[in-house]
Amino acid sequence: MQFHHHGYVSTDPRIQEVAGCGIDRPAEIPEEVDVLIVGTGPAGMILGAQLSQFPDITTRIVEKRPERLAIGQADGVACRSVETFQAFGFADDLIREAYRITESVFWGPDPHDRNNLVRTARTKDDPHGISEFPHLICNQARVQDKFAEVMENSPTRMTPDFGLKFVDLTVADEGDYPVTVTLNRTAGEREGDDLTVRAKYVVGCDGARSNVRRSIGRTLDGDSADHAWGVMDILAVTDFPDIRTKGLITSNEGGNILLIPREGGHLFRLYVDLGVMSGKDSAAIRQTTPEESIAIAQRIFHPYTLDVKHVAWYSVYEVGQRVTDHFDDVPNDMIGRRTPRVFITGDACHTHSAKAGQGMNVSMQDGFNLGWKLASVLRGLAPESLLDTYSGERQPVAQKLIDFDKEWSRMMGAKPMDPEHPELGGVDPEEFQNFYVQTFDFIMGFSTEYELAPLTASADHQNLAGGFPLGRRFHSAPVVRVSDANPIHLGHHATADGRWRIYAFADTRVPGGKSAVADWADWMAEAAESPVNRYTPEGAETDAVFDVKVVYQGDHTEFDAIDAPEIFLPRRTPFDLIDYEKVFATDPSDDIFDARGIDRSGAVVVVRPDMYVSAVVPLSEPDKLAAYFDTIMLPQTAAAPAHA
Amino acid sequence: MQFHHHGYVSTDPRIQEVAGCGIDRPAEIPEEVDVLIVGTGPAGMILGAQLSQFPDITTRIVEKRPERLAIGQADGVACRSVETFQAFGFADDLIREAYRITESVFWGPDPHDRNNLVRTARTKDDPHGISEFPHLICNQARVQDKFAEVMENSPTRMTPDFGLKFVDLTVADEGDYPVTVTLNRTAGEREGDDLTVRAKYVVGCDGARSNVRRSIGRTLDGDSADHAWGVMDILAVTDFPDIRTKGLITSNEGGNILLIPREGGHLFRLYVDLGVMSGKDSAAIRQTTPEESIAIAQRIFHPYTLDVKHVAWYSVYEVGQRVTDHFDDVPNDMIGRRTPRVFITGDACHTHSAKAGQGMNVSMQDGFNLGWKLASVLRGLAPESLLDTYSGERQPVAQKLIDFDKEWSRMMGAKPMDPEHPELGGVDPEEFQNFYVQTFDFIMGFSTEYELAPLTASADHQNLAGGFPLGRRFHSAPVVRVSDANPIHLGHHATADGRWRIYAFADTRVPGGKSAVADWADWMAEAAESPVNRYTPEGAETDAVFDVKVVYQGDHTEFDAIDAPEIFLPRRTPFDLIDYEKVFATDPSDDIFDARGIDRSGAVVVVRPDMYVSAVVPLSEPDKLAAYFDTIMLPQTAAAPAHA
Ligand SMILES: Cc1cc2nc3c(=O)[nH]c(=O)nc-3n(C[C@H](O)[C@H](O)[C@H](O)COP(=O)(O)OP(=O)(O)OC[C@H]3O[C@@H](n4cnc5c(N)ncnc54)[C@H](O)[C@@H]3O)c2cc1C
Ligand SMILES: Cc1cc2nc3c(=O)[nH]c(=O)nc-3n(C[C@H](O)[C@H](O)[C@H](O)COP(=O)(O)OP(=O)(O)OC[C@H]3O[C@@H](n4cnc5c(N)ncnc54)[C@H](O)[C@@H]3O)c2cc1C
Repeated sequence: MQFHHHGYVSTDPRIQEVAGCGIDRPAEIPEEVDVLIVGTGPAGMILGAQLSQFPDITTRIVEKRPERLAIGQADGVACRSVETFQAFGFADDLIREAYRITESVFWGPDPHDRNNLVRTARTKDDPHGISEFPHLICNQARVQDKFAEVMENSPTRMTPDFGLKFVDLTVADEGDYPVTVTLNRTAGEREGDDLTVRAKYVVGCDGARSNVRRSIGRTLDGDSADHAWGVMDILAVTDFPDIRTKGLITSNEGGNILLIPREGGHLFRLYVDLGVMSGKDSAAIRQTTPEESIAIAQRIFHPYTLDVKHVAWYSVYEVGQRVTDHFDDVPNDMIGRRTPRVFITGDACHTHSAKAGQGMNVSMQDGFNLGWKLASVLRGLAPESLLDTYSGERQPVAQKLIDFDKEWSRMMGAKPMDPEHPELGGVDPEEFQNFYVQTFDFIMGFSTEYELAPLTASADHQNLAGGFPLGRRFHSAPVVRVSDANPIHLGHHATADGRWRIYAFADTRVPGGKSAVADWADWMAEAAESPVNRYTPEGAETDAVFDVKVVYQGDHTEFDAIDAPEIFLPRRTPFDLIDYEKVFATDPSDDIFDARGIDRSGAVVVVRPDMYVSAVVPLSEPDKLAAYFDTIMLPQTAAAPAHA
Repeated sequence: MQFHHHGYVSTDPRIQEVAGCGIDRPAEIPEEVDVLIVGTGPAGMILGAQLSQFPDITTRIVEKRPERLAIGQADGVACRSVETFQAFGFADDLIREAYRITESVFWGPDPHDRNNLVRTARTKDDPHGISEFPHLICNQARVQDKFAEVMENSPTRMTPDFGLKFVDLTVADEGDYPVTVTLNRTAGEREGDDLTVRAKYVVGCDGARSNVRRSIGRTLDGDSADHAWGVMDILAVTDFPDIRTKGLITSNEGGNILLIPREGGHLFRLYVDLGVMSGKDSAAIRQTTPEESIAIAQRIFHPYTLDVKHVAWYSVYEVGQRVTDHFDDVPNDMIGRRTPRVFITGDACHTHSAKAGQGMNVSMQDGFNLGWKLASVLRGLAPESLLDTYSGERQPVAQKLIDFDKEWSRMMGAKPMDPEHPELGGVDPEEFQNFYVQTFDFIMGFSTEYELAPLTASADHQNLAGGFPLGRRFHSAPVVRVSDANPIHLGHHATADGRWRIYAFADTRVPGGKSAVADWADWMAEAAESPVNRYTPEGAETDAVFDVKVVYQGDHTEFDAIDAPEIFLPRRTPFDLIDYEKVFATDPSDDIFDARGIDRSGAVVVVRPDMYVSAVVPLSEPDKLAAYFDTIMLPQTAAAPAHA
């Protein structure tokens, strides 16, 4: 965290200085906004938190409920989400509060007495150490609260506009605010009143029954029937030995329960499978009472007891595996010829079972993918075409998720195979466990791979940094900050501020003398084609758009930060102070060059504002770096060198 | 963190349920209080935060300033303090915000050109890994803020009473509220008005010029003259290579600077030595302006430049090495015959140079030492004689600090020895560096060793747990929580809740069967002499006074938490839920039995509410455990077994 650069500010440094539209922010939603977000679920809140960082963008987020969500809905927080929370500054807070999954257990019929229940397997979470962040369980409400804090502490002092329901919208062909939205007040003195807001962009984060989706004529396609679960957050006394471990319990009759221990040490969630809502039964299934769900759970837990003392939350969650073919308002025949004005995210464009805990996580990545793109376009840094890439990148992710979820649900819902009667079918517990381990990376959110050119560059130079695969999230690794000898996780200093990260991995142990990294740094600072010079708005700080960092191969004791080229030592207004936090050495106990397969001749790794690796180029070919940004960014000034 | 045990509470779990005197807490200070704390410095705030945890104790903290401290004063946060913050729940927050020291550098005259400055040494902080917590630098104001948050989130919803100055007090021989205090309003509408408050206990945390100290007739004794430093928190541009590393810079002329980088990446503090305030010069020294201090600093930094852009805080800090002989109001001839009613803590009883960064840290340990003792006595758990141990334990610590500080200041203030002219005197840089490394444990707060019997038990069985030395702070180590396979730092779950921790290190790998730990657990649960049965108030939860945990020698996969004896699985009101968070296995990658030298025949380690190891006894001799508490605690009920 960096602060105090214009003097000491005696408050929580997470409270940013108010600026732009945060100054005298109107309590009432204005008639014209840059971005209108509909819905305060995980997708809407991450998007709001992202856009709230920009004082020059007016963003409002409306929610039909009169107040914040208090409890319920999703609770699985994948490692990739926790990485993302780090960028928003609250990973630690949530880790402290949440339940942490380190193992999962599987219980099934005892081979010796199939009416008895035994632990059939125990698997480690994150068996390959894919992330330094944990896999958590925490109420969706608290995750949303954290994003609300980020918004409120942002320069724009944004807070959700509760009690406003989206009704409909129309998109005009031109005008500064082409989307006209009708909202309706659901609370307060003027309850029932309509109001109209005009926006540059509208984002539907309004869940599975999205009206924004309907208003742009898109549909969720897929299964005809929904699957239903009785979901309950309960306090209970039980002699089941693994009640504080995530578990799948499958009884001989085939009924199954997903057990999710929850934050705080006592609460836990049970997903009781209620089956497919086919035709005439569906009304009855929908009516399943907590008592009925508990009774089913008790049968499955048998011979263990389950004495439920308190039901904190209960819901029959019914959902089908469905996905929309396109995530914005551009008609299929106009794609590439018109840019979008309305987007849909999260459950509004894909729904699937709750069993793999993807609901909140994938929705947040939708919002995170869209946020920086909207900001870049609105701030004049990127062309509107960048907005096409949102659907282009996220729709295939959703499609993959649906395919995965079908397989996953089949496995999770299947009767366990009786080894003495394999002819009766069912899934072999071992096969199940293997599937679980193999798909861990997917479930944790790490198999997303954006392939869309030109946003993801060609893989010509991937060999220079094999551990930073193109299109995948930047996998952080330890380094040592030279100026203060602090051990640092390189990626943890990438905040959700809409900036690009350019990591120069040096070809030398230390700065000084002639080297590829020195030449590259000079080019970055001086050349007209350098992205820093070409795309940084006039008057902005050198690193306003590109956060350029360097990692030398030596130990931090071998050199001084101040000897690094000036591009790595940007100045801070108003006092022209030197920023010393961009010069790194390797951590001798875990050399990043080895850990991430970086060539000793050096490499430049470009990471998008949403933390995905988008280009790997040689230090010695800066033109390739320049070329990468050609179609993605808009030139700002008559290419004056940054340090004239 | 444990919560949700009586149902889901949809807010930050750090906000505790309001209770007792927190319900309808009066905004105005009441006429009668249990404890009146004077001063909101680090000593007062930790004490207030500690006492605020008890709904049955009315504590108020008065401060003559009209509002919170905004900036300045101490900034060094020793590892021991960060451990303590963990117990109050904000270590992570402060770590994130603070500057972290991992190395210190020493600069002195270049042997080849003594007017030039060179780095003479670089030392690692915490060279022996004495704590898993970092050594931090953070403004005292922010530390105080964190304690204020703890108070405000406590069941008593305590907040400081600003604008009230302590004037004087008298102590009566008897009565429920024997201390009568005169306060004076320093702000607000009734500014200048006096008011009277009667208290059971008064604690003077009112700094070096303490009026509480004066009112009980105690004095600070020691040096006749003060030493002065120009202290400034500044923003500056410099080419000095180590400006972001803690450093001691000594020029050839002998002038020296202590450089402390500060939180936020830009600010740093300089301590410029202004010398001893002897006689006629002292007024002049006291008048040293920021400009003059900067000019001295620039001379010392020469040939490096120091271009100061902004002075955020400046103070001439003058202080002598002084200490009071006794820290409470019991006249020296009455010690042991009367128990104290008034205490003094922190700077009110010891002052010393700022150079070793002890000001805030030692003061907080004073408050932490006193807090649980006051609470125990006020809640009827412990006899009043416990209060004698505050001065008994802390005065020797202060005395040791003063002795240390004299030596330290001599070294820090000395001219560096010119190797070619050793006859001119000065300190050899190598000697200096060695001294620094050797005294690190002291500076970090880890050499405190309480020796006072009976609070610290005899060392007869120290050999059973050599790594938990009696009288020293409990040095945490990793274990695995069995119920959820979470890797846990055993000591990090000791919160500042006034409870004792009793750790049973088992003689077996797993529960079940006959064993010393099983017998001990039965005794703890059943025997009338068991501390749990003897000292837990009727109606309270089993672990209300003693938090009893067990560590088995096996791997967590070898057994289930629920198989542990019931003393390790206490129940929670109102639903009788099982608490699964007290049963541990060893961490295979770092076995606590090896790491802390615990005998494989097991051991019982008793840790005080302020985290100091106070007894080590064998599992097989529970009477020794019983005997330990005999004079320290007050029996509560007619010894009914906890699980009758
Ligand atoms: C009742 C319920 C139970 C669920 N249970 C589970 C579960 O057990 N496990 C699991 O993994 N997932 C569950 N989910 C799904 C999970 O919550 C979602 O996958 C996740 O929240 C998706 O995030 P989102 O932001 O896309 O949508 P949501 O979280 O659904 O957020 C949509 C928001 O938009 C608001 N909104 C809707 N329409 C309008 C409108 N017209 N105008 C203004 N605001 C509007 C809604 O009130 C809501 O706040 C559940 C969802 C629901 C609704
Ligand atoms: C101006 C100043 C500069 C300092 N600079 C440094 C430094 O550079 N480095 C360093 O290590 N240490 C420094 N210290 C010392 C360091 O702040 C203390 O060691 C540390 O704060 C001790 O904590 P404490 O709680 O005992 O006392 P303090 O922090 O001094 O707190 C005492 C509190 O009591 C209040 N108070 C005093 N009298 C009354 C009264 N009659 N009624 C009500 N309230 C009263 C004061 O306003 C203050 O808030 C400085 C102290 C001061 C006062």
